[in-house]
Amino acid sequence: MNILVVNPNTSASMTRTIEQTAARAASPGTRIIAVQPAYGADAIDSAMESYLSAVAVMDRVLSVAEPYDAVVMAGFGEHGREGVQEIVDVPVLDIAESSAHVAQMIGRTYSVVTTLQRSVGAIEDRLRLAGLADRCASVRACGLSTSEVDDDPAGAMEAIVAEAEIAVRSDHAEVICLGCGGMAGLDEAITTRLGVPVVDGVAAGVRLAEALVGLGLRTSKVCTYAPPEPKTITAWPLSRHLDLETR
Amino acid sequence: MNILVVNPNTSASMTRTIEQTAARAASPGTRIIAVQPAYGADAIDSAMESYLSAVAVMDRVLSVAEPYDAVVMAGFGEHGREGVQEIVDVPVLDIAESSAHVAQMIGRTYSVVTTLQRSVGAIEDRLRLAGLADRCASVRACGLSTSEVDDDPAGAMEAIVAEAEIAVRSDHAEVICLGCGGMAGLDEAITTRLGVPVVDGVAAGVRLAEALVGLGLRTSKVCTYAPPEPKTITAWPLSRHLDLETR
Amino acid sequence: MNILVVNPNTSASMTRTIEQTAARAASPGTRIIAVQPAYGADAIDSAMESYLSAVAVMDRVLSVAEPYDAVVMAGFGEHGREGVQEIVDVPVLDIAESSAHVAQMIGRTYSVVTTLQRSVGAIEDRLRLAGLADRCASVRACGLSTSEVDDDPAGAMEAIVAEAEIAVRSDHAEVICLGCGGMAGLDEAITTRLGVPVVDGVAAGVRLAEALVGLGLRTSKVCTYAPPEPKTITAWPLSRHLDLETR
Amino acid sequence: MNILVVNPNTSASMTRTIEQTAARAASPGTRIIAVQPAYGADAIDSAMESYLSAVAVMDRVLSVAEPYDAVVMAGFGEHGREGVQEIVDVPVLDIAESSAHVAQMIGRTYSVVTTLQRSVGAIEDRLRLAGLADRCASVRACGLSTSEVDDDPAGAMEAIVAEAEIAVRSDHAEVICLGCGGMAGLDEAITTRLGVPVVDGVAAGVRLAEALVGLGLRTSKVCTYAPPEPKTITAWPLSRHLDLETR
Amino acid sequence: MNILVVNPNTSASMTRTIEQTAARAASPGTRIIAVQPAYGADAIDSAMESYLSAVAVMDRVLSVAEPYDAVVMAGFGEHGREGVQEIVDVPVLDIAESSAHVAQMIGRTYSVVTTLQRSVGAIEDRLRLAGLADRCASVRACGLSTSEVDDDPAGAMEAIVAEAEIAVRSDHAEVICLGCGGMAGLDEAITTRLGVPVVDGVAAGVRLAEALVGLGLRTSKVCTYAPPEPKTITAWPLSRHLDLETR
Amino acid sequence: MNILVVNPNTSASMTRTIEQTAARAASPGTRIIAVQPAYGADAIDSAMESYLSAVAVMDRVLSVAEPYDAVVMAGFGEHGREGVQEIVDVPVLDIAESSAHVAQMIGRTYSVVTTLQRSVGAIEDRLRLAGLADRCASVRACGLSTSEVDDDPAGAMEAIVAEAEIAVRSDHAEVICLGCGGMAGLDEAITTRLGVPVVDGVAAGVRLAEALVGLGLRTSKVCTYAPPEPKTITAWPLSRHLDLETR
Repeated sequence: MNILVVNPNTSASMTRTIEQTAARAASPGTRIIAVQPAYGADAIDSAMESYLSAVAVMDRVLSVAEPYDAVVMAGFGEHGREGVQEIVDVPVLDIAESSAHVAQMIGRTYSVVTTLQRSVGAIEDRLRLAGLADRCASVRACGLSTSEVDDDPAGAMEAIVAEAEIAVRSDHAEVICLGCGGMAGLDEAITTRLGVPVVDGVAAGVRLAEALVGLGLRTSKVCTYAPPEPKTITAWPLSRHLDLETR
Repeated sequence: MNILVVNPNTSASMTRTIEQTAARAASPGTRIIAVQPAYGADAIDSAMESYLSAVAVMDRVLSVAEPYDAVVMAGFGEHGREGVQEIVDVPVLDIAESSAHVAQMIGRTYSVVTTLQRSVGAIEDRLRLAGLADRCASVRACGLSTSEVDDDPAGAMEAIVAEAEIAVRSDHAEVICLGCGGMAGLDEAITTRLGVPVVDGVAAGVRLAEALVGLGLRTSKVCTYAPPEPKTITAWPLSRHLDLETR
Repeated sequence: MNILVVNPNTSASMTRTIEQTAARAASPGTRIIAVQPAYGADAIDSAMESYLSAVAVMDRVLSVAEPYDAVVMAGFGEHGREGVQEIVDVPVLDIAESSAHVAQMIGRTYSVVTTLQRSVGAIEDRLRLAGLADRCASVRACGLSTSEVDDDPAGAMEAIVAEAEIAVRSDHAEVICLGCGGMAGLDEAITTRLGVPVVDGVAAGVRLAEALVGLGLRTSKVCTYAPPEPKTITAWPLSRHLDLETR
Repeated sequence: MNILVVNPNTSASMTRTIEQTAARAASPGTRIIAVQPAYGADAIDSAMESYLSAVAVMDRVLSVAEPYDAVVMAGFGEHGREGVQEIVDVPVLDIAESSAHVAQMIGRTYSVVTTLQRSVGAIEDRLRLAGLADRCASVRACGLSTSEVDDDPAGAMEAIVAEAEIAVRSDHAEVICLGCGGMAGLDEAITTRLGVPVVDGVAAGVRLAEALVGLGLRTSKVCTYAPPEPKTITAWPLSRHLDLETR
Repeated sequence: MNILVVNPNTSASMTRTIEQTAARAASPGTRIIAVQPAYGADAIDSAMESYLSAVAVMDRVLSVAEPYDAVVMAGFGEHGREGVQEIVDVPVLDIAESSAHVAQMIGRTYSVVTTLQRSVGAIEDRLRLAGLADRCASVRACGLSTSEVDDDPAGAMEAIVAEAEIAVRSDHAEVICLGCGGMAGLDEAITTRLGVPVVDGVAAGVRLAEALVGLGLRTSKVCTYAPPEPKTITAWPLSRHLDLETR
Repeated sequence: MNILVVNPNTSASMTRTIEQTAARAASPGTRIIAVQPAYGADAIDSAMESYLSAVAVMDRVLSVAEPYDAVVMAGFGEHGREGVQEIVDVPVLDIAESSAHVAQMIGRTYSVVTTLQRSVGAIEDRLRLAGLADRCASVRACGLSTSEVDDDPAGAMEAIVAEAEIAVRSDHAEVICLGCGGMAGLDEAITTRLGVPVVDGVAAGVRLAEALVGLGLRTSKVCTYAPPEPKTITAWPLSRHLDLETR
């Protein structure tokens, strides 16, 4: 089984990290195809960047030549899942939603810990539209941006674990979903200190994708996710019209 | 991987059907252990029977000697999942909830088609408490009891497909979850006639159980699903105190 | 009028306490019949014990020979009300729900104060399914188990009053429902210190039962709470098949 | 025990009907004091009339000289309950809310059948603010105004029973609350034909009032329903400043 | 364009303040007609006073001789909007609702800061019934009554800004709606210190009224807000029957 | 005042229609600047096209040289509003949301009538995330695509009015929002036949934009809608990197 995992941003190192996480989580027979968009931001913290990512990800998916059995969209709170569901036939999973699905299976309530407060709304919106907000105890931000996390991993881990602790102690979360870029050892630290399971979205997405493929199920095309009707679309796919060679 | 699949009722033929469905849905390396409770009703259509099933299922699970990696509770709308989550360490999945999880992954909305109107409330309650009701377009009853379904399978299929059609046409369901006993060819009939994917709960439960085991995740024991404190419990497990020898 | 009050656990002393509370709350012409199940836990803090209680309570109710006009189920957050509603014709009241009904009649919002955090979910679920969660400001746990309450009543009262105070000050509860075993003087302490009314569930259940009987109303049998269809039920009622003589 | 029952409109014949219903529903030791406002509409079908009724009812309650132990406000969907809760110390019950409380105790869902569609919103609002809308399957209007009901009682009964039937058959209501003026034999007709219990709001209000008084509970005065602070109020109570002598 | 702005209380100085705020907010071509009721409280902090205000405001509106194109009801959380919508043909706006509409247009979430905790419920109810509660992060009370605000404006400003700060920091409000009497400089202080926009309800109501008039839209009269049917209404309008000459 | 109105699709004729509607709705002193994106679909019926539109609209907005005081996004149910809110300082209004705001001001409930069923979900999502779904009685599709509407305007009008009639009669909508391309005379037809007000989104957006500008309010930048942090964004704005000259 081939699973196409799409990094929503243009950072090649993030794509490699996602690929490794996905490969580690996958079943023996599963091959991970990790790609990243040809344009857009190298980290996504705003709606503007998220919308651009949605388009760039659809664009990138359209250009994948290899066959694949499912798509995992590796942005936590990014836009675009419905669009990809329309343009491919195979199952499509978003990692924020996948995290919430898995969390609800193993605990009464869950919390998400993410980076910046400004991203909380996007995650809440995505969970809400997916019908997965009801058992969400909270979406909490540790207050550090991605670059700050990179600059001081040890301090960042402390900040994230501290926020997870508030989620467990005050919001009564029983599972923590990591809504920020993977950090080696973070889930172990949280599980060890707080006694709660931790869900990694990429891993969850890969395993749920395998489950859907195994069930022989595909996205319903009866209404909302039917392929777009043919029509005049200027410059689409954008990548074929962009001067991207120098980058 | 061993998955323990528990029929909530005492019908041995239903246990075999469930076992076959589970085995067909499982990955190659997965072994299905199908069991049924030692007491309770041979079909469950009421809260009284459902509560009795919850206890009999917990009781039966406690007596399973073989090791298993996950539990799938094969009652659609029956009580008991939280109780089993407390008494075992491995992941526990309920098939009504599993159906809803999977349905939400492949469609914007889903409907459940079940047997009798009196069971609709129990299914709605279970979905609601699981935080999975938001994308449920409807829970519809075809109006036939289990025995009526057995007596006239062809007529029953017509009735169920007709109700599914109302769900798709009027409630705008994009996926149908079968909330009644499996019937050969039922999902094909619905998919062919209505163009929507159909989710079988047992199959969904088995594949999601595999996913959780693959992720190395277990039920959070930090609060709600912690093991019961030791205390005086009269006649528990009941099966050791019951005169069940003649059955 | 005879009201059957059922202790959900097997503690005879708790049955006596409940009986006294019920008798004190009842109108002059009302006789209280207090019973307890023949099997199950002597205190209920988990879903496993709660489900077992649901079955044992239904079982016990079936064996009551005296006529009664209503049933009050004296477990705060325990399962089983719907099952008893199916098997008897008279009105059936659950004390968690009765507390919430009464609290909503006398205040804009109410909070429940219970024992352990792990029981909070069960109470929230029951209120939610009963359609009584909307005006619930919070369900709070004082952190003491039943046995700890028994060991240090004075300290326990302080802990409960402290939690009620948070409910009033921070959650803006205007009424407190006691979701833990009655304790002499507890309601007076809360009312005196915090100025809010306190609702005792057993008392509320008894008076609401009287009201329903006085109105000549019974449980609707048109759908969900219709009597279970006759079918093969192995070993039911369980009490007739259990070796319970040695207790 | 004395229960003050307040007709929200100025129709003396309606006051007598309400008084009779209340007296019939009351326990032996309860005395009904039925009053009506000194000003306002003789039937209430609009927000304008409802607000005027709220004030006229508060005004009338302030002038009751006899002692009473509880107040029942006999308007189905009318404004004013919170105001009366502020100005008296005894429990105050609204009949729309009382109906919903009782209906939820005896069935999984309930519907209200009222007169005109324009009144549906007011009833929905009241149930929603009272936290009692969750188990409301529907509020349905039979399309007849009060005067049309008076002109053709037999036809009106048919219209109301027909609407109740839709509530039971299509909305799956298990209990019907009568949200229109009492009509002899209406509840029997519905129960006989549809097999569902019917709740009369005035009767429900009286019995719930008795229950609260019996429990020794009063409206929480800790916040929302505290007595209004003393201040300059021009012309209040209005009845002392109105030239009402000629009516 | 003429906009009728109605102060809900009988304070002439408050009417002047409201008139000035409205005039300052209005477009060049708009004339403000500010009125106040002839009876009722000179400040409104309770449901009793609020209901009385609803009636007095309707009464006052009926007596306005000048033509006007829209009505703005200047009470934050007061009753009555639906009643005025029935009795006039032009658009009617409530300032609590207008504040929420505007706040939602410029921020993801908003909080209301009002005077006393006892008024919080009324504001929450109004927002909820208007379908505007979903993006409301909180309704917070600074704990000072209107008279206390008048006695110590500087201290009051500190208290209000402090509460707004909690709304922004803890509830993550992105816009603040002032639910208490205007105070010179209050919005500037909040915006300067907290960096969030502040919405004044009277100003919002005036500008939204202009927008509706500009669109040529009027209240829908098809159902809920249709004019009341003609019927016998004793002493209405009350002002014509009251001995108000000496005040 | 200059209002920038952005057509979400690339149809120049639609841009002209939108411009005319906006100009007709605007106040005398308001100038409409109507633009359309340089790339994307010439009609939007899918999530794919909607996401592409969101990006193309942001791109187009960034290239507007003239000063403007507010932005109106003229797509009914399209993505992108949050992105534009981040990248400009002036108020930004979406026409689906603007329609709902206005509808709620003039009626208790509203329905949206749109083209195809597959677009219903996107509109529901947008209303829900905007906190404006509570008073939405229904979103209904007339079943005709934009091109079918163009081919047979008379037939289309019948279909739309018929759907609006179901919304009014069955869903009890009191206001209709047109969620499909303006059609001359459509609103008159609905108002005349059904007696309900009809809201045009572009007109509503323009007038609400004027109101916000008049109030001196801008989008809150304190959190969610703060400008994106500077970072490496490949090929942004896309229009500067696209070979768009030949179209």
